[in-house]
Amino acid sequence: MKFGYFDDANKEYVITTPETPYPWINYLGSQAFFSLISNTAGGYSFYKDAKPRRITRFRYNNVPLDLGGGRYFYLYDDGDFWSPGYAPAKKELDSYECRHGMGYTKIKGSRNGIETEVTFFVPQDYNGEVHKVTVKNTGSAKKNVKLFSFIEWCLWNAQDDSTNFQRNFSTGEVEIKGSVIYHKTEYKERRDHYAFYSVNAPIAGFDSDRETFIGTYGGFESPKAVVAGQSGNSVADGWSPIASHCLEIALEPGEAKDFVFILGYVENPVEEKWEWQVGTPDDNGLLMSAKAPNGTNIINKKRAEEMIAKFATTEAVDAAFEELKEYWDKLLSKYTVQTADEKVNRMVNIWNQYQCMVTFNLSRSASYFESGIGRGMGFRDSNQDLLGFVHQIPDRARERIIDLASTQLPEGGAYHQYQTLTKKGNDEIGGNFNDDPLWLILAVTSYIKETGDYSILDVMTPYDNKDELAAPMADHIKRSFDHVINNLGPHGLPLIGRADWNDCLNLNCFSTESGESFQTVTINDG
Amino acid sequence: MKFGYFDDANKEYVITTPETPYPWINYLGSQAFFSLISNTAGGYSFYKDAKPRRITRFRYNNVPLDLGGGRYFYLYDDGDFWSPGYAPAKKELDSYECRHGMGYTKIKGSRNGIETEVTFFVPQDYNGEVHKVTVKNTGSAKKNVKLFSFIEWCLWNAQDDSTNFQRNFSTGEVEIKGSVIYHKTEYKERRDHYAFYSVNAPIAGFDSDRETFIGTYGGFESPKAVVAGQSGNSVADGWSPIASHCLEIALEPGEAKDFVFILGYVENPVEEKWEWQVGTPDDNGLLMSAKAPNGTNIINKKRAEEMIAKFATTEAVDAAFEELKEYWDKLLSKYTVQTADEKVNRMVNIWNQYQCMVTFNLSRSASYFESGIGRGMGFRDSNQDLLGFVHQIPDRARERIIDLASTQLPEGGAYHQYQTLTKKGNDEIGGNFNDDPLWLILAVTSYIKETGDYSILDVMTPYDNKDELAAPMADHIKRSFDHVINNLGPHGLPLIGRADWNDCLNLNCFSTESGESFQTVTINDG
Repeated sequence: MKFGYFDDANKEYVITTPETPYPWINYLGSQAFFSLISNTAGGYSFYKDAKPRRITRFRYNNVPLDLGGGRYFYLYDDGDFWSPGYAPAKKELDSYECRHGMGYTKIKGSRNGIETEVTFFVPQDYNGEVHKVTVKNTGSAKKNVKLFSFIEWCLWNAQDDSTNFQRNFSTGEVEIKGSVIYHKTEYKERRDHYAFYSVNAPIAGFDSDRETFIGTYGGFESPKAVVAGQSGNSVADGWSPIASHCLEIALEPGEAKDFVFILGYVENPVEEKWEWQVGTPDDNGLLMSAKAPNGTNIINKKRAEEMIAKFATTEAVDAAFEELKEYWDKLLSKYTVQTADEKVNRMVNIWNQYQCMVTFNLSRSASYFESGIGRGMGFRDSNQDLLGFVHQIPDRARERIIDLASTQLPEGGAYHQYQTLTKKGNDEIGGNFNDDPLWLILAVTSYIKETGDYSILDVMTPYDNKDELAAPMADHIKRSFDHVINNLGPHGLPLIGRADWNDCLNLNCFSTESGESFQTVTINDG
Repeated sequence: MKFGYFDDANKEYVITTPETPYPWINYLGSQAFFSLISNTAGGYSFYKDAKPRRITRFRYNNVPLDLGGGRYFYLYDDGDFWSPGYAPAKKELDSYECRHGMGYTKIKGSRNGIETEVTFFVPQDYNGEVHKVTVKNTGSAKKNVKLFSFIEWCLWNAQDDSTNFQRNFSTGEVEIKGSVIYHKTEYKERRDHYAFYSVNAPIAGFDSDRETFIGTYGGFESPKAVVAGQSGNSVADGWSPIASHCLEIALEPGEAKDFVFILGYVENPVEEKWEWQVGTPDDNGLLMSAKAPNGTNIINKKRAEEMIAKFATTEAVDAAFEELKEYWDKLLSKYTVQTADEKVNRMVNIWNQYQCMVTFNLSRSASYFESGIGRGMGFRDSNQDLLGFVHQIPDRARERIIDLASTQLPEGGAYHQYQTLTKKGNDEIGGNFNDDPLWLILAVTSYIKETGDYSILDVMTPYDNKDELAAPMADHIKRSFDHVINNLGPHGLPLIGRADWNDCLNLNCFSTESGESFQTVTINDG
């Protein structure tokens, strides 16, 4: 059975049925804002680290599969409704196509003479995901349709969000201004960041409370508001905050209209957090005024509004999309082969290099099988991965090497993982995986081989992220080597420590204690 | 709007619609095997502690609500199918009723002239949940229907089960023997416990692999096997193991048939873990034989088979159900009032006391809003709760007081929580909630007032679970008192420590670090 094909000219894989054997996903973003997106637009977004800074909610191992969160769109046409990406509405489409490209995904679906295409991408140097939606009337009569958007906010820490309901059902906070829904949970108490979901057009309605939009016992496949063709204009207060817009779209035969949705992330300096705070007199000298609905403070939206203004027009979006394509064309042009076998060419010139870059960006911290909760970036993994992309982005490879070496411990060992948000070693898993530091040697070597830049050996690099312990990179490599030589067993062989780079060689793979870690329990490995 | 009524004679609350404002749940079990069950049979089961020993999988904060796991039944009748408890199939029923009683729940639903009643309860002194299913033909023609059962196994640790897919999708193991499906994930490596789901009748088919039963993109509301009226006879190997039986039932007009399903939990001593192990010669001297399908060891099923044999007949189940009713009648007869107000009588004589007993059993460790993952039993909570049930079960109240005091720290402070599986203090949250030990004084006092049993003051009780630190209970109370007196601030007032018993008085409720604990961050409270 065939589920799609390669479009080499566009560097895309084209999926022709929504029901692939498993969800087939792509990654968006290559700097700080990242997203997982399936061929029906399932998945989620996060800023730098998928555990502490999850932006949208996703349910792993869900039933039905891949119906636990995404950027969902619903078309409503005179009582009928459907999703242009098939899911979540799962109404039969007259046509469906998903194109996973280099850092973007396009999904197109039509029904009832309405063709809808959504392009999802994260522009360069931008902390947000753009959803460009084109709705076209392919029939011969005028149409009045409605377009509903939907995303569900994660209350930031993905682990806490999925377990601590006693607290989390009471904390959700939003603001709505114009066509923008802001998610500001915990911004008042201890966060300097919020998220937003905007559209560059007037809205006929909105929802920010999940239950109002979905209905108490409803599902993503048939939200109450979509079934009724009418938003609830709900303002979330606790429970599960979401963001949904409703647009009314009139289309002449053959006419198409574009809309730009932005799912963005903003950090504000502490002194610029608020536009207005409760207790501040307003222009009329009143302490509690219309400025403070429900007595809440008003967040400073300046940075969000700048982000939204940047992509106010389709032209600006198209230009950013072209810029992204050029970025990838350039990256992939650094090393190419032409062989007689188109499959070899395709793999070497496009997909393997793309995969390596995704691995650079995310290591193995988040996928549809890695929940993004259990781990950070691997010390061993990231040093290994570097071998695959050092020729594409030598500058960022150099930075990554220094980040990694900065988490190394003074005795030459290493934290097994580090968190991308803090760039610090992960205490939870700790160190003592004795092969880890060896990979740093290989990474530095391959960087020098590729670039000829020996100066990296002189870079003063901290141990354990402590500047006062900094030493030249060459010293890090030496201590890595010594760490192996100085940790031999009675037969003169290097000790494994907790686990070997072969993931099956965990010393504690059998124990009598259920729940004991396979990797981090300290046992005698002499 | 009315969703049900009290049936005081039967000590039941009767729910007359499946779509209550939120799922209305009951608790089963009062010793070691516990279950949460909603009015449509959603929920889950666990042994002693809902985090490390979760038996069935449940998805909290699911969309649709309460459709993330339960004991699901499906009736199949000539192409049509439905669930007798409405969910998960959500086909319209001709009648529906749920009775939440004292430690049991009965759900009855009919459609197409088939009336099905399921009684769910955990018998006394039994580590399992009994589902007695009665299927009755209320029509005038002979019927041939099929009954599908369904539960989804949790891979034991609920936290790990919902995050560590890289590992967990590879570990699931089952055995099927006759009409019993055994869940034995990690039994080989490090567990001495397994679970099973049985039925006391020959089966026409079974499934133990979720994807085979549900379909890749299917949902609980229309599993592929049920839609087809045909089990897949799948043997799970990794991914998501489940247990589903298919029974073929022929019913004359007016005829009813009973079936007994048991969801059980078994612990085996290490030396009795296996019936047969790979490498052991069989009767013919062969090392790899038909005894070892897929080369796996065969678990020792003796204890499971004894549990199943105990309730092989409807009569045995009915007797155990009567025993449970008598147990509750006796508990609730210890303290009764008769006032002119039936609502006061109902609340004092039935529901408040029932609630107090549930709180004794589970403290606040698991509900539809407390995921069972984040915490154990509270030191403060459990001492407080005791005031409500000490008159009903003074012996177990005494045991609970001693368990709690055994986790007290030598300096008089206390772990804020303890895990029921180990009865040890929870290191993750630690102590330093300075009001905690005071509640021990109140608990011991109320026990003595109720029973006159001053001997509890002489019971040698460990500190920090260390027998060598044991001292009489009176000493624990004294140290509790001194702990307050010796921890005063500059104004002579007791220091709060990390948080006060008023849950809103957390000293760290504002901080600049997102993700910092509200309760356990150590800050200067002087």
